[in-house]
Amino acid sequence: MNFGNKLSLAINRNNSLVCLGLDPNVELMPNIGIAEFNREIITATCDVVCAYKPNLAFYEAMGIEGLRALESTREHIPDDMPFIGDAKRGDIGNTSRMYAKALFVTLGFDAATVNPYLGYDSVLPFIEYAEKGVFILCRTSNPGAADFQDLVYELVAQRAKEWNHHDNVGLVVGATQPHKLNRIRQICPEMTLLIPGIGAQGGDLGAAVEYGVKTGGGRAIFASSRQILYASAKGDFAQAAREAVLKLRSQINTLISGDSPG
Amino acid sequence: MNFGNKLSLAINRNNSLVCLGLDPNVELMPNIGIAEFNREIITATCDVVCAYKPNLAFYEAMGIEGLRALESTREHIPDDMPFIGDAKRGDIGNTSRMYAKALFVTLGFDAATVNPYLGYDSVLPFIEYAEKGVFILCRTSNPGAADFQDLVYELVAQRAKEWNHHDNVGLVVGATQPHKLNRIRQICPEMTLLIPGIGAQGGDLGAAVEYGVKTGGGRAIFASSRQILYASAKGDFAQAAREAVLKLRSQINTLISGDSPG
Repeated sequence: MNFGNKLSLAINRNNSLVCLGLDPNVELMPNIGIAEFNREIITATCDVVCAYKPNLAFYEAMGIEGLRALESTREHIPDDMPFIGDAKRGDIGNTSRMYAKALFVTLGFDAATVNPYLGYDSVLPFIEYAEKGVFILCRTSNPGAADFQDLVYELVAQRAKEWNHHDNVGLVVGATQPHKLNRIRQICPEMTLLIPGIGAQGGDLGAAVEYGVKTGGGRAIFASSRQILYASAKGDFAQAAREAVLKLRSQINTLISGDSPG
Repeated sequence: MNFGNKLSLAINRNNSLVCLGLDPNVELMPNIGIAEFNREIITATCDVVCAYKPNLAFYEAMGIEGLRALESTREHIPDDMPFIGDAKRGDIGNTSRMYAKALFVTLGFDAATVNPYLGYDSVLPFIEYAEKGVFILCRTSNPGAADFQDLVYELVAQRAKEWNHHDNVGLVVGATQPHKLNRIRQICPEMTLLIPGIGAQGGDLGAAVEYGVKTGGGRAIFASSRQILYASAKGDFAQAAREAVLKLRSQINTLISGDSPG
């Protein structure tokens, strides 16, 4: 089953647009090892989220041990749950082919985030895996996004739309600049958006739902990591994570069913 | 010793501006394993290059086995030889810190390539390792570089200059668009440039030496991989690689000592 259908089924099954970022920071989590931490988080949340999204940086920082924990984590993800590799890779064509292989074949992700700075030949090797999803960074949620992206994010959205021959391209758009999210939604009304920045980064969830979900025909999923994984630093971390997911799911679903603001 | 000094010593010791890309493609190399292949290449070239630069994509495509080969490769790099991790990473600040740790601490690189698309807070965690080198992608050598970089590469060069408080920032600038290389050299006359694109990608070596080395006060190193590693696909691959390095070193040094064109 391709990524898009797998995501649709998970969204409907769990009535959830929450994409849980599995970004294990050993300084913030209980001392039980990354693999066990993730396993308990997954067990506690797999019926209330729509996807899991490990950011590879947190695993690579631990070397081979970290990669083993990522493999172990993958084994605990239910088969019907989308597994998104947040790696933000991008290189010249023949090298990007290797990154696409690493993420989609070696690590077995259903989808991946890709950095578009190197342009079409850097993104194409990912898109060519027609069964996989490719989320191109468009306008990210961090302060530095203003430095260069503000000059090109609309063009990135336009190009992503042109490159979407396999209907497997999405965009990463932060919730921290709602009018830019709205602008991107105007350019790509049908595209799936991956929206970070709603939790610790302080983005506007109401505006993100309005422009991500209620404007245009495309869907959006909302990535959150820190506010869920570290809802409690104690032994009840998994139950606390579940409660944090339930709260966010409810906030999003209430915003969707409610009247539009203004 | 910091990266800049280590690079200077290697350049002078080996009279070479050749940075050898260790990008082992199992489809093109003898069937002896990546680690052994790299070891023979390093043994045959370590007195005639100025740095080694593995691109992580080629290792990650092989999973944990690939990471082990990268660790083994690092052990065979002489201590006085700069080791540059070509990873093109970049993420929001707290995540980029993990990538910087992965490259500079876990993998032990002396320098790394960084993708600037996410802006200042994505690059800063790398720059803060003042003893390490940070090569920011500015204008790359591939066809897709025209898609978005052409709108921002001059601004990237300006910002890189502003961010260079530790004198450890360089730029990646392809040899395939000489007038853009020249423009970047005008903006950053003192900065170290890492110049790919001179071999299989067809860049103009004469123009790259002119604008990279002979214009402004900064230095440049020239990255080549495929034309050296796969100079021979047979048992004499290491000797053939050495000869390919010697040829390229001589071409560069002749261009430097010769009169400027036009």
